[in-house]
Amino acid sequence: MSLPISLLTDYGLADEFVGVVKGVLSQIAPASRLIDVTHQVPAFDVRAGGLTLSRAIQYLPDGVVLAVVDPGVGSARRAIAVAAGDMVLVGPDNGLLAPAVAMLGGASAAVELTDTGLHLPAPGPTFAGRDIFAPVAAHLATGSTLEEVGTPIDPSGLTPGMLALSRVEDDGLHAEVLWVDTYGNAQLNVGPEDLDALTGPVGADRDADVVALHLGERVRSARRVPHFAAIRPGEIGLVTDSYGLVAICLDRRSAAAELGLAAGTQVRLGPADGEAPGGPGPRPVTLSPPRRG
Amino acid sequence: MSLPISLLTDYGLADEFVGVVKGVLSQIAPASRLIDVTHQVPAFDVRAGGLTLSRAIQYLPDGVVLAVVDPGVGSARRAIAVAAGDMVLVGPDNGLLAPAVAMLGGASAAVELTDTGLHLPAPGPTFAGRDIFAPVAAHLATGSTLEEVGTPIDPSGLTPGMLALSRVEDDGLHAEVLWVDTYGNAQLNVGPEDLDALTGPVGADRDADVVALHLGERVRSARRVPHFAAIRPGEIGLVTDSYGLVAICLDRRSAAAELGLAAGTQVRLGPADGEAPGGPGPRPVTLSPPRRG
Amino acid sequence: MSLPISLLTDYGLADEFVGVVKGVLSQIAPASRLIDVTHQVPAFDVRAGGLTLSRAIQYLPDGVVLAVVDPGVGSARRAIAVAAGDMVLVGPDNGLLAPAVAMLGGASAAVELTDTGLHLPAPGPTFAGRDIFAPVAAHLATGSTLEEVGTPIDPSGLTPGMLALSRVEDDGLHAEVLWVDTYGNAQLNVGPEDLDALTGPVGADRDADVVALHLGERVRSARRVPHFAAIRPGEIGLVTDSYGLVAICLDRRSAAAELGLAAGTQVRLGPADGEAPGGPGPRPVTLSPPRRG
Repeated sequence: MSLPISLLTDYGLADEFVGVVKGVLSQIAPASRLIDVTHQVPAFDVRAGGLTLSRAIQYLPDGVVLAVVDPGVGSARRAIAVAAGDMVLVGPDNGLLAPAVAMLGGASAAVELTDTGLHLPAPGPTFAGRDIFAPVAAHLATGSTLEEVGTPIDPSGLTPGMLALSRVEDDGLHAEVLWVDTYGNAQLNVGPEDLDALTGPVGADRDADVVALHLGERVRSARRVPHFAAIRPGEIGLVTDSYGLVAICLDRRSAAAELGLAAGTQVRLGPADGEAPGGPGPRPVTLSPPRRG
Repeated sequence: MSLPISLLTDYGLADEFVGVVKGVLSQIAPASRLIDVTHQVPAFDVRAGGLTLSRAIQYLPDGVVLAVVDPGVGSARRAIAVAAGDMVLVGPDNGLLAPAVAMLGGASAAVELTDTGLHLPAPGPTFAGRDIFAPVAAHLATGSTLEEVGTPIDPSGLTPGMLALSRVEDDGLHAEVLWVDTYGNAQLNVGPEDLDALTGPVGADRDADVVALHLGERVRSARRVPHFAAIRPGEIGLVTDSYGLVAICLDRRSAAAELGLAAGTQVRLGPADGEAPGGPGPRPVTLSPPRRG
Repeated sequence: MSLPISLLTDYGLADEFVGVVKGVLSQIAPASRLIDVTHQVPAFDVRAGGLTLSRAIQYLPDGVVLAVVDPGVGSARRAIAVAAGDMVLVGPDNGLLAPAVAMLGGASAAVELTDTGLHLPAPGPTFAGRDIFAPVAAHLATGSTLEEVGTPIDPSGLTPGMLALSRVEDDGLHAEVLWVDTYGNAQLNVGPEDLDALTGPVGADRDADVVALHLGERVRSARRVPHFAAIRPGEIGLVTDSYGLVAICLDRRSAAAELGLAAGTQVRLGPADGEAPGGPGPRPVTLSPPRRG
């Protein structure tokens, strides 16, 4: 038995950290396929790592996930393994695993990694990825059960992930940038159905496929388009991205760089006539609450 | 049957894109070796991606190539698979695959990826690497034929690659930087035999192994040397690189950074006496046309 | 027989170099696992590459190591394979392999890679990783003996690695930054036992777990802590890192960036009262010589 092991960390690729983790995995699970989800989660950014893993999880093969973004390494935070769906996720109990576990339908069991006999001896507690998580993940990939690597704990007591929900107020849809990808597309916590209340579905008869994008004091028009290549030069596009959420995009340029967007940036979306001479200030609009798919 | 799958994209490694593509490949072709050619093609740069793949292709194992630099994703551009030599290349029909296909001796067959039953369901058409190219590549690696993944199309109708040829004029050899590598070496569209007309082969009796390098208004001397370590401090070297083309190099420093070179930079090469007091302006010189190997 | 092959280079990941090397390896050793230690050794930095490999080596599976940081490629420097412990290391004879070989207990045999029949034909001598080291490493991974790939040479004549040792003088412990990791932690050539002479072991009764850190003209206090998360905001921590050496660290920020540390930076450590009103100048202190573990 040699299940695949998918890896996500904030180790970067400049140091030998990822190679060392793979060396440890390879000694215990030499036949397991190793899949790098990414190792370039921003350093210490548990929230970004959790969102990244939750986006990837449904595409990863059944097996083991080893995820480490762990600013509290060596402190009292627990090291855990969590069973969810047909996956076992191994990492720190700091909320990193929570969004992916939720995507898999929730945890069916969890253990704290108390069986130190499986861990590597180490001069200190600072590289748990190598000394604790890697050997445990490799044992789980080669047939060990959860109970063989730790002590059962109540899954409901695991540190939850934080998820910012968009909300409708009188002056529009208040949203947040969840993620800026490598091309500079800024994914919002907004589904395409949320925009329908402001505009109308793409391709519908309604003329208004344009939305007012309120970025602090600035207001810009943004047009709903079916794919990146449909964005005209100079125009801001709203694309339903590959995860089914709305992203702010430009034509082959970085929307994040040009509009000053980053993970966590607050964005307000309103009907296009929000750009009327009345200015960008709050105006009363009536919206139905958006459905969340 | 589990052929190797080689991957080239402009996805970068910061996001989960590459990991997700490998997750999809692994579910369909769990025993296929996955080889990353690179995922750091400059974003949307189809020409650079095509050149990179053409440099790598002869060293990749027979099997499947999955290449995605795809600014037109979701638009009318076709998704294709092309058989050439003992390889099948999968990607967008935008010229990305063309230089590698040419290196392999040309396409023997091609299909448009119209069998949507093989593709993944998706909220939109923006991540074809995951939803179309990856499952098709994995099926091809595990024994599917071209006809089982799409509709035959005429290979002669595929989008060609663009290749800038150097040319000899009265004032010297007009060349272009094809590629700047990670060390800052600037590869030209010039073979060593092209330089012989200006200097004489390396090691020949002729004294003149020095060439005048015209960079806009500047003129610099450059000396032909057999390898990087033979470049003297402060000197510009012309090295026949590992692909058999001439590269402008410095001694352990970036020639591109110091001389302001990038892919596409125009460079004129002339005999060394082009640096004579007459200055850098155009001067009549007589050259035989260079042979192109 | 298909031994794992671990790779370390300064090729970076932007170009196709690593992919091409893996293509060559895959054609000869299709069943060998390939493990990337790192490909982001700073360009031409043989010392950094050697230290990185020496940190990783004990965690890599028995097999072959292919290491290339090779500014002298194509010149008179030898291409070698070295047996040490249960590993064979392949690379240039420029000191790159030496620290890892020492970690493995020294070389038991070595050859110069003179069997050109195994090498790839190439237009020039500039890409030995592809043309010489990769095919040789793959043959070694699939059962070739050292003697089948080269000519025996005396291991004692191999280029040694350079190692800066810390030293105790009247004004304190003179140390050097060996490595700055991706988080900005600065590893010193100092073990925790070296600090005991200045402070007392962590957790001991002595109050003085604080050390004076002399950085050029500046003096800063640094406190010994058991792990990163125990560092207070604004405080400098001294952590015994995952390799058993002392590292200068901040709380989730880059110590290297804030304190101006890089590989090679000289640091002097003294007792905390070195910060007394007498100022940062040299003061007579009496220290026992530190033990080197």
